[in-house]
Amino acid sequence: MEKVLINGYSLPNIPFEERKEKGESPLWRYSKNPITKRNPVSGVARIFNSAVVPYNGKFIGVFRGERVNGVPKLYLGHSDDGIKWDFDKEPLVFVDEDGKVTDSYYYYDPRLVKVEDTYYIICCLDFCGASIGLMKTKDFKTFIRMENPFIPFNRNAVLFPRKVNGNYLMLSRPSDSSHTPFGDIFLSESPDLVYYGRHRHVMSPSKEWWESLKIGAGPAPIETKDGWLLFYHGVTRTCNGYVYSMSAAILDINQPSRVLYRCRNFLLTPEMPYEERGFVDNVVFPCATMQDQDTNRLVLYYGAADSYVGMAFGYVDQILDYIKKNSRLDPSDSDIGK
Amino acid sequence: MEKVLINGYSLPNIPFEERKEKGESPLWRYSKNPITKRNPVSGVARIFNSAVVPYNGKFIGVFRGERVNGVPKLYLGHSDDGIKWDFDKEPLVFVDEDGKVTDSYYYYDPRLVKVEDTYYIICCLDFCGASIGLMKTKDFKTFIRMENPFIPFNRNAVLFPRKVNGNYLMLSRPSDSSHTPFGDIFLSESPDLVYYGRHRHVMSPSKEWWESLKIGAGPAPIETKDGWLLFYHGVTRTCNGYVYSMSAAILDINQPSRVLYRCRNFLLTPEMPYEERGFVDNVVFPCATMQDQDTNRLVLYYGAADSYVGMAFGYVDQILDYIKKNSRLDPSDSDIGK
Amino acid sequence: MEKVLINGYSLPNIPFEERKEKGESPLWRYSKNPITKRNPVSGVARIFNSAVVPYNGKFIGVFRGERVNGVPKLYLGHSDDGIKWDFDKEPLVFVDEDGKVTDSYYYYDPRLVKVEDTYYIICCLDFCGASIGLMKTKDFKTFIRMENPFIPFNRNAVLFPRKVNGNYLMLSRPSDSSHTPFGDIFLSESPDLVYYGRHRHVMSPSKEWWESLKIGAGPAPIETKDGWLLFYHGVTRTCNGYVYSMSAAILDINQPSRVLYRCRNFLLTPEMPYEERGFVDNVVFPCATMQDQDTNRLVLYYGAADSYVGMAFGYVDQILDYIKKNSRLDPSDSDIGK
Amino acid sequence: MEKVLINGYSLPNIPFEERKEKGESPLWRYSKNPITKRNPVSGVARIFNSAVVPYNGKFIGVFRGERVNGVPKLYLGHSDDGIKWDFDKEPLVFVDEDGKVTDSYYYYDPRLVKVEDTYYIICCLDFCGASIGLMKTKDFKTFIRMENPFIPFNRNAVLFPRKVNGNYLMLSRPSDSSHTPFGDIFLSESPDLVYYGRHRHVMSPSKEWWESLKIGAGPAPIETKDGWLLFYHGVTRTCNGYVYSMSAAILDINQPSRVLYRCRNFLLTPEMPYEERGFVDNVVFPCATMQDQDTNRLVLYYGAADSYVGMAFGYVDQILDYIKKNSRLDPSDSDIGK
Amino acid sequence: MEKVLINGYSLPNIPFEERKEKGESPLWRYSKNPITKRNPVSGVARIFNSAVVPYNGKFIGVFRGERVNGVPKLYLGHSDDGIKWDFDKEPLVFVDEDGKVTDSYYYYDPRLVKVEDTYYIICCLDFCGASIGLMKTKDFKTFIRMENPFIPFNRNAVLFPRKVNGNYLMLSRPSDSSHTPFGDIFLSESPDLVYYGRHRHVMSPSKEWWESLKIGAGPAPIETKDGWLLFYHGVTRTCNGYVYSMSAAILDINQPSRVLYRCRNFLLTPEMPYEERGFVDNVVFPCATMQDQDTNRLVLYYGAADSYVGMAFGYVDQILDYIKKNSRLDPSDSDIGK
Amino acid sequence: MEKVLINGYSLPNIPFEERKEKGESPLWRYSKNPITKRNPVSGVARIFNSAVVPYNGKFIGVFRGERVNGVPKLYLGHSDDGIKWDFDKEPLVFVDEDGKVTDSYYYYDPRLVKVEDTYYIICCLDFCGASIGLMKTKDFKTFIRMENPFIPFNRNAVLFPRKVNGNYLMLSRPSDSSHTPFGDIFLSESPDLVYYGRHRHVMSPSKEWWESLKIGAGPAPIETKDGWLLFYHGVTRTCNGYVYSMSAAILDINQPSRVLYRCRNFLLTPEMPYEERGFVDNVVFPCATMQDQDTNRLVLYYGAADSYVGMAFGYVDQILDYIKKNSRLDPSDSDIGK
Repeated sequence: MEKVLINGYSLPNIPFEERKEKGESPLWRYSKNPITKRNPVSGVARIFNSAVVPYNGKFIGVFRGERVNGVPKLYLGHSDDGIKWDFDKEPLVFVDEDGKVTDSYYYYDPRLVKVEDTYYIICCLDFCGASIGLMKTKDFKTFIRMENPFIPFNRNAVLFPRKVNGNYLMLSRPSDSSHTPFGDIFLSESPDLVYYGRHRHVMSPSKEWWESLKIGAGPAPIETKDGWLLFYHGVTRTCNGYVYSMSAAILDINQPSRVLYRCRNFLLTPEMPYEERGFVDNVVFPCATMQDQDTNRLVLYYGAADSYVGMAFGYVDQILDYIKKNSRLDPSDSDIGK
Repeated sequence: MEKVLINGYSLPNIPFEERKEKGESPLWRYSKNPITKRNPVSGVARIFNSAVVPYNGKFIGVFRGERVNGVPKLYLGHSDDGIKWDFDKEPLVFVDEDGKVTDSYYYYDPRLVKVEDTYYIICCLDFCGASIGLMKTKDFKTFIRMENPFIPFNRNAVLFPRKVNGNYLMLSRPSDSSHTPFGDIFLSESPDLVYYGRHRHVMSPSKEWWESLKIGAGPAPIETKDGWLLFYHGVTRTCNGYVYSMSAAILDINQPSRVLYRCRNFLLTPEMPYEERGFVDNVVFPCATMQDQDTNRLVLYYGAADSYVGMAFGYVDQILDYIKKNSRLDPSDSDIGK
Repeated sequence: MEKVLINGYSLPNIPFEERKEKGESPLWRYSKNPITKRNPVSGVARIFNSAVVPYNGKFIGVFRGERVNGVPKLYLGHSDDGIKWDFDKEPLVFVDEDGKVTDSYYYYDPRLVKVEDTYYIICCLDFCGASIGLMKTKDFKTFIRMENPFIPFNRNAVLFPRKVNGNYLMLSRPSDSSHTPFGDIFLSESPDLVYYGRHRHVMSPSKEWWESLKIGAGPAPIETKDGWLLFYHGVTRTCNGYVYSMSAAILDINQPSRVLYRCRNFLLTPEMPYEERGFVDNVVFPCATMQDQDTNRLVLYYGAADSYVGMAFGYVDQILDYIKKNSRLDPSDSDIGK
Repeated sequence: MEKVLINGYSLPNIPFEERKEKGESPLWRYSKNPITKRNPVSGVARIFNSAVVPYNGKFIGVFRGERVNGVPKLYLGHSDDGIKWDFDKEPLVFVDEDGKVTDSYYYYDPRLVKVEDTYYIICCLDFCGASIGLMKTKDFKTFIRMENPFIPFNRNAVLFPRKVNGNYLMLSRPSDSSHTPFGDIFLSESPDLVYYGRHRHVMSPSKEWWESLKIGAGPAPIETKDGWLLFYHGVTRTCNGYVYSMSAAILDINQPSRVLYRCRNFLLTPEMPYEERGFVDNVVFPCATMQDQDTNRLVLYYGAADSYVGMAFGYVDQILDYIKKNSRLDPSDSDIGK
Repeated sequence: MEKVLINGYSLPNIPFEERKEKGESPLWRYSKNPITKRNPVSGVARIFNSAVVPYNGKFIGVFRGERVNGVPKLYLGHSDDGIKWDFDKEPLVFVDEDGKVTDSYYYYDPRLVKVEDTYYIICCLDFCGASIGLMKTKDFKTFIRMENPFIPFNRNAVLFPRKVNGNYLMLSRPSDSSHTPFGDIFLSESPDLVYYGRHRHVMSPSKEWWESLKIGAGPAPIETKDGWLLFYHGVTRTCNGYVYSMSAAILDINQPSRVLYRCRNFLLTPEMPYEERGFVDNVVFPCATMQDQDTNRLVLYYGAADSYVGMAFGYVDQILDYIKKNSRLDPSDSDIGK
Repeated sequence: MEKVLINGYSLPNIPFEERKEKGESPLWRYSKNPITKRNPVSGVARIFNSAVVPYNGKFIGVFRGERVNGVPKLYLGHSDDGIKWDFDKEPLVFVDEDGKVTDSYYYYDPRLVKVEDTYYIICCLDFCGASIGLMKTKDFKTFIRMENPFIPFNRNAVLFPRKVNGNYLMLSRPSDSSHTPFGDIFLSESPDLVYYGRHRHVMSPSKEWWESLKIGAGPAPIETKDGWLLFYHGVTRTCNGYVYSMSAAILDINQPSRVLYRCRNFLLTPEMPYEERGFVDNVVFPCATMQDQDTNRLVLYYGAADSYVGMAFGYVDQILDYIKKNSRLDPSDSDIGK
């Protein structure tokens, strides 16, 4: 078998279920979705838009928990199989480099990315408005709050799983102070996760209607033989509000602001009751993947209707093929600001 | 048993169902919700946001009935058990003091409150824009339209069940001419239900997200040993519109513009299919309660998704305890305009 | 039996199901609605807002197919019974008079109307913004794109099934470049389907709340003894977006900009799960009817939640009676711009 | 000479200048307008929208002074001739009934009205949002803050100069929390200036374009043989913002919510440099009049461009004639909510 | 001298003044601008946005007169020299083909164009919203209202001075129901001024900032050796509203939807006090030209600040040269919808 | 004389004029303002919002020149006395580090700051939306474009004149993609002007109305004995748009995100005709200062009405005193995000 995943890992116990129905998309849903229910923990009304990683032979994750006062915090979750999760009773606490507790009124939409021997949480928090926050841990016991990467407003960011050309890389989407009816993906470099620069434009919303309003990076990009596989969400606006779907693109390995392929079709769009209705109707929002380099199996975790966590499955090679076959680059994917 | 309800009444036949599932909130839903269906009466598409009282050993209520031309009117309903309702075929007719019929193109969101020996309907109607209307009846046969309490725009008001310091008291929320993306609760006094004054601010939306956009009084305040128990709705705004939840506060008995306790958590938020979807998705809207002073049992009637009537139950003493335990006053709860 | 339908046709195999439940409206739903599911054809996520006609003893239709990139195209569908449909794999291709292929990035909300020996498609397409497009075919193999009837913005139009006073007649609704929070129905004449003029106002939104925001013509008007029977949709706006219902009016046979009767009640409003939720919640949108002149049976096809096709049934004579009995003309129905 | 002014006063030293140029309107500007300049007092950037009365043979007034931090306060002004004004160095201080100082962050657009032996200030101030405030004085030394007449939002009110049918009367305009793109005039009664009720609609914006957006009462109504003469402002909206003009109506003496005549033309519209440009371009805003019952001479003080005070003159009898000759009542002037 | 104007006329008495100051633009202002003052006629507050033609050796024009109730009507004006104008006391009256008077509540922004032996007025009027109206006269005594060319909303149109390829040609701009923050120029053909079709896109706003929001045709196109010379206005939006400038383009003689040259610079932008301030600040709005084929002298009449009429002068050959030298076509100028 | 300016320079030929009229503010206008006129150079309509420095005994500056196509570019200007300026005929050209020309469609609102031996231009330019651009020069002949400091949207930035704690410091204001009805000042550090980080909040709009909407840094901060003297603009919103005034604050020398004093009053607000009207009415916008350390004289250059350059004068010591005397810190000035 051709090696598809680069710098990957073996994950024989990856949660996975083979496809049960025919379908065009190389992603299919878990038949027992959603894997969380409302009121999963005392004081928490809904868990969704959450990120997981393999850890010590099991699984661990950082979850957006919307409390019963409506304010989201981050919660740690543990799982033996990646499907059934136990959540901590209290939200995560962050400290600064000196061990002093530091807090934000809210935290949401975390990503969890391992770079070298450290796990990083990238999320949205309050820094004079919705901004990107960054924390790190090595043991999932102490979580250190680092410098905020950007000035507001920015609500959606994720780190690459390794340095490229000696620098850390972060994707993010500049926003406004409200529901942001626009949004492009940008790439920023950092030598040290303190200073950021060499900002490059990556992708804009396209003329495909499912992603015509705004887009935003999802899980950490996955290194493959074809380039970085980036799952992302795209939003359209109807007379009744926003609809969030998801798809994927392939970025150049060494210059990831270059889009090599971009799938013009969504890979997942709200179709199931738990995606169509909930606190925010019609949302699928991808936040994490895991993949097994030996079998190319991939599991993707996504938020559904801002109320539940869903899972979807696929084979990385098939996903890459589908993207390449259905790719259409927008003019904005190549030249702006690069 | 400590006497919790003050100036209350015995209601041994109160509709009630004990809690069947564990939960954090001191309110739980009726297992057979909703108690109304679409098209309940000829010419009426939906009944919701409605108010009921005990009457002659049975129950009577004033209901918002959205007619098949989309325009809401008020309908009388009768029930033996408070659960199964029979509705009049024709909307309520109002007359002025001289017995002459007076009409508004629309009426909605009624409250029904007994003060001394008179039943008052407080609702929204058309007075050069959405305004508060006030009617009274002693026999549920003749309904007399009284002076409008306020100039427009105001869509949500309720009377206290007794005079305080010799004056009638009314809670209301000033609005604008559209969907009103703001809203505080105010208290006004009246010696005669003709002239109103001594307006005082009571509560603003808080930093708790579930009620960060606007709030509005629900059923008539309930007199308790701890103060006036006020159920109210709170609204948040997502990219797909408003979400209406409900909670409660405790107001000072003699100076009810003073908030003593305010529950930072919602007590009920849209979670059930009949609350999540309907004419307006994601709405729970409390309009009436009844409570039995002998057992502290309470039933709360609420509108669901602007399409159905739901019921919820609780014990007044437990509700008071939960509010006090989870109270956080906002700066605006105390000092503004008092 | 009095002859109700004028210039009609016999359609003994009309898809039809008798009413199973009591109801006030002279229209009732098919008990097996919806007749389409999500992902009905490869590359198509949803089919809705579509038009059908009898053809060679069977049925043929033009369907709005929302592709997996979110962009709608038109698809041909074939059916033996009008209920179960087979769709072409590829969207319709249009050519100009010289046989050269001509294209628009999107097409939606088609109507399909036979005038004399030609079938016309009227739809919305891109002409520097959303505009009305017109195509014709005689054999459902070659589809010729004709001149665009109007300058932008206009999203909703339908042709009359015969010339009146020697001219073709088209109903349409001028729009804006976004979600258009207004909209009246206008009538335009054309001697040749190239030039259009003598534009007349037909109807405005009314004070009935279900249609207070905007209205738009639905299927081709049906010629009856009482006048042209026009089904149309009406829209209201809640704090959570638009709600699309439908009703009908009767227009003067010889001067169809004159409204003779207009039903103040909706005939169908979103009540079923497949109407309440989907890509756009709370939408019923009528696009086509067929009727049998021998029995007065009528079938109406409507889009549901921008996700499905639904069917409803009725008898033309009963529908006319209901409209006349519940008619209220608005001042704007008669005099403006005529 | 026919007696035109009722319950008026003699004011032989009324500031006045005869008309110098021909014109259609019965009002003409003072040739030396504006009578205030920018930075009239230390710490005050602009004085405008201010009210004056005769006092002890001279003149006294309450002025809106926009301080150099942009926040408006009220200032007392004194004048021998009503034209040249000396302003106090410090803003007015208000006390409650117990003599305790009470304050609002801002005050603006005062009216000053004498009823019986008391002078009342009606202005806009902060009561959990822009609301109407009411103060009284007998000696222009002690100013007592009274109960706020209404709940928010309301920005423009004025008292009648005498009780009618035993009650005080106040005109006001309900507003929203921002720049209020709508606004009608309402009348409220009060037996004691504490409680208010019997609210009646007076006038809406009309189809005359100069007042098609909103209207608001100006100076205190003037009692005349024909009814209450009410000067008011009307607003239209262009692509560059609002334009404030002014005109007048005549209200029934005993039932002042009845409009007897309403001038369809503006009496003054921004035409002079000091009206066309300033802090807010294109504003004339009437706040006060004085009139001499012996000669019918009238002087009107108005704010210009939110930057200056202007004066205009006229004869009351000519003004009444012009209004009656050019009157057109709107349907909304008579029937709504009365 | 090369013949520059085609199908033109000799106009030796054309109002004209040679350039007095150096400037880049081939247009310069009249040194005695504006040629109208406020309140030019009894009952009229401002005259602007008006159209004139040579007539019987003198000049005649149709003027937008904003009445003292704020509503615009059309007035006839007469002038010996094209500079000093006498206006009729009453607005124009229009009759239908049968001589019956027909009216609109408002009329504005007229153009006056002679085609063959008939003078046509094209203006904006009320046809269920702002629409294009068309009238004709041969003697300036009887004005016949013709069919409305388009359905709403459309506020700005002008006819070509001759038929092209046998058809009348009209330029217009589709609008919305408010201040229209967008707008392209379209071309429509008509064989008879009753039916219109073959709509073609001509020009969009461009990336030049002075015309980045919307554009609209000004005076009737002028036939020249290089093509149709079209003056048009362009609008930009600042944080303080719209700014209207003007420039010109050259259209293909036989296919005038083809833009041959388009001047990237404005030719006139608000710079003078009478253009910078008035009822609407910062507006120059061209409505008419006259030109002498013997000398190439041209006079252009434009509205200033929605308050005055201004004149500008130039030589047609120099204007053409300047356009060609400074031309930049936008992609949208050529291909969309043609 | 106490040394007030730190790290300053002697500038005996500073352009200066003593105060001619009494006034409260420590800044006064140049009596011959404005110092630029419309159309100052061929192809340029207006020059404003521009920055100057002393250079070789004379003065040099970078000017925003709004071209006759409405698009702003940067122009070099030279002056012997700092008052009368000669502008280059062509806009500035920028090259990258390799000498290759690089361009943006627009550039505006430049600041010009000397740090060590290099002059930096900080301006707004197009980087997939309005963003901050940075260029450098040593000889005012070659201008090298550096990395863009931030991702969009950001429109207003300025560099400190020296490194602090070893890092360059930049103030900026994050914006949205339109007219940005909000805006705070942030501070960012950079070791190398390539990477930026350690972003800190400095100031928010305050409750003083003149600056209640948004604020933005003006000229480079001036080092004084009391701290960094920062002139900045503040914006309020009326019903007719934005009004831009200016004031100043004093920041801590070593930790400049700490606000020590903040003047609650504006120092300059639009009052003169050239500030009140122009392309954007009611704007004063400070961009540059020069100051003489021997006399404390200061000259400030500001844009007026987006149309002209104005000058104002003051003494640094008096300005500091006025700020300290009239200081009020907002809660947001100290703690947010630091």
